[in-house]
Amino acid sequence: MDTLIGTYADTPAKPQFKRLAVLGVGLLGGSFALAAKHAGLAQEIVGYSKSPSTIKAARAAKVIDHGADSALHAATDADLILLAVPVSAIGPLLKQIRIGLSPHALVMDVGSTKGNVVAAAQEALGDMASRQFVPCHPIAGGEHSGVQHARSALFDGRRVVITPMINNPDRFVEVASQIWEAVGGVVSIMDASEHDAAFAAVSHLPHLVAFAYVYAMARQPKGGSYLQLAGPGFRDFTRIAASDPTLWRDVFSANNTEILQQLQLFKQAIAGFEAQMRQGNWSVMESLIRQASQSRKDWASPSPADDIA
Amino acid sequence: MDTLIGTYADTPAKPQFKRLAVLGVGLLGGSFALAAKHAGLAQEIVGYSKSPSTIKAARAAKVIDHGADSALHAATDADLILLAVPVSAIGPLLKQIRIGLSPHALVMDVGSTKGNVVAAAQEALGDMASRQFVPCHPIAGGEHSGVQHARSALFDGRRVVITPMINNPDRFVEVASQIWEAVGGVVSIMDASEHDAAFAAVSHLPHLVAFAYVYAMARQPKGGSYLQLAGPGFRDFTRIAASDPTLWRDVFSANNTEILQQLQLFKQAIAGFEAQMRQGNWSVMESLIRQASQSRKDWASPSPADDIA
Repeated sequence: MDTLIGTYADTPAKPQFKRLAVLGVGLLGGSFALAAKHAGLAQEIVGYSKSPSTIKAARAAKVIDHGADSALHAATDADLILLAVPVSAIGPLLKQIRIGLSPHALVMDVGSTKGNVVAAAQEALGDMASRQFVPCHPIAGGEHSGVQHARSALFDGRRVVITPMINNPDRFVEVASQIWEAVGGVVSIMDASEHDAAFAAVSHLPHLVAFAYVYAMARQPKGGSYLQLAGPGFRDFTRIAASDPTLWRDVFSANNTEILQQLQLFKQAIAGFEAQMRQGNWSVMESLIRQASQSRKDWASPSPADDIA
Repeated sequence: MDTLIGTYADTPAKPQFKRLAVLGVGLLGGSFALAAKHAGLAQEIVGYSKSPSTIKAARAAKVIDHGADSALHAATDADLILLAVPVSAIGPLLKQIRIGLSPHALVMDVGSTKGNVVAAAQEALGDMASRQFVPCHPIAGGEHSGVQHARSALFDGRRVVITPMINNPDRFVEVASQIWEAVGGVVSIMDASEHDAAFAAVSHLPHLVAFAYVYAMARQPKGGSYLQLAGPGFRDFTRIAASDPTLWRDVFSANNTEILQQLQLFKQAIAGFEAQMRQGNWSVMESLIRQASQSRKDWASPSPADDIA
């Protein structure tokens, strides 16, 4: 980590690590391991998962070099540690590994919410938090979870948001940025609260809406026969509704307030559209649709349509 | 149209037409013209559009052989006529072409709602309706409208729902089925009311929800900066929100009752999810998400993910 930050403006320095520990070897953890190996970021990769069969699968697929029998064992002697577990597990995991943390180890997470992760890290690590932990959120993943879907290109061109702890030294954040850039990511730095407000709007609410829509759809008496008629519009609209229930329960819990606030804005919009439909105001309805359609057309997709994780 | 229906069980008969008239040369009309030419369904294809520049573009791209200066001119002497216009334009268009209709001409539409099309055809054509008109809905299209996106494979593997007029002879419906099969479609036959109820659930409500979500998203003070952080989940969830405003205003108007009924079911589901979030019932919340996630996983996508129109 003793990189010469700032002197390689055009050819960013790539940090080098001896031992990367990936705690939670699912889609994100496994893909980070593959990408880190591919980028030459780490000489050795050790993995830990609660499920022994996951470790076995990850070793068989050469996603990790070794498996560890506990998070503490995996983290001990590692100089880079990635926590790739649901956000509610980050605090407990940090407590488990704290005793084995090398004083120079850099610890990062990949959680979709950040305010709660900052708080959990502060609580678990105390003063060590700002010297060891950098909260990160790579905007990658998808409805296919599990190490069997891991691929080294998962982060290619993807935004990675870093929300530094209040006392993280700049240089420490810089190294974290270089790591994500080395695996293909495009780094943005912002406050945890700003992050959580933005992602409630662009990600968490859409997941809530998609879950509720599919729930309503599937439970109605003729839902099964209706679903047989569903086409590509339905497929794309509901893709995120197949996402992991535990992970999303955690996100809804962690970012409750912001999501409920976005939900109110959405419900107001739905009520507005519904009122026009009930009153038969079709020119107003068309104008509302036109505004939405134009906003969506103006939005520049961050990645090509075939890049679905 | 004098095909020997029923005698070619294993090698379905392919109808042959001298002159196909496509009224409305957009994505669907243009793609049908290309597919019909490709399949050898029609010897000659004439197109009409309200906009002269569309006809010019369609001729330049060899989507149609000739342009006509009116719908009536296009339809006169045609033995197959496709109405590929927003559903509200179908009745007026049928009235315009009625006088020129050859007694053997088969007329089909591609509208997303069918109850209103059946009624409009009855009103415009009277007794002629059941002898000349078969209401059809190919489940194809997408947010990219316009003849420049037309392609002959648009209907490949796509479901095409036919909702016969009450007095359509079976054989007449059979010919319409063979036409859609010849361009790659997979035909289902059902009542118009059954069609409208099902598509309110699997297509129209998702469009309404996606429009309302993007509207709420884009209009909030920080919407613009939030949108810059949106990723692939947002991209797919909102793809249908870029759809054509005029077309969708018509769908919402034509299928108002069924859509509002589906909207109530959705709002109840949203209220249920919201209540669990407000009360912090995370195990119930997880169970709701799990049911939705499983339903979506159990759904078999009708076409591969790269087949986005």
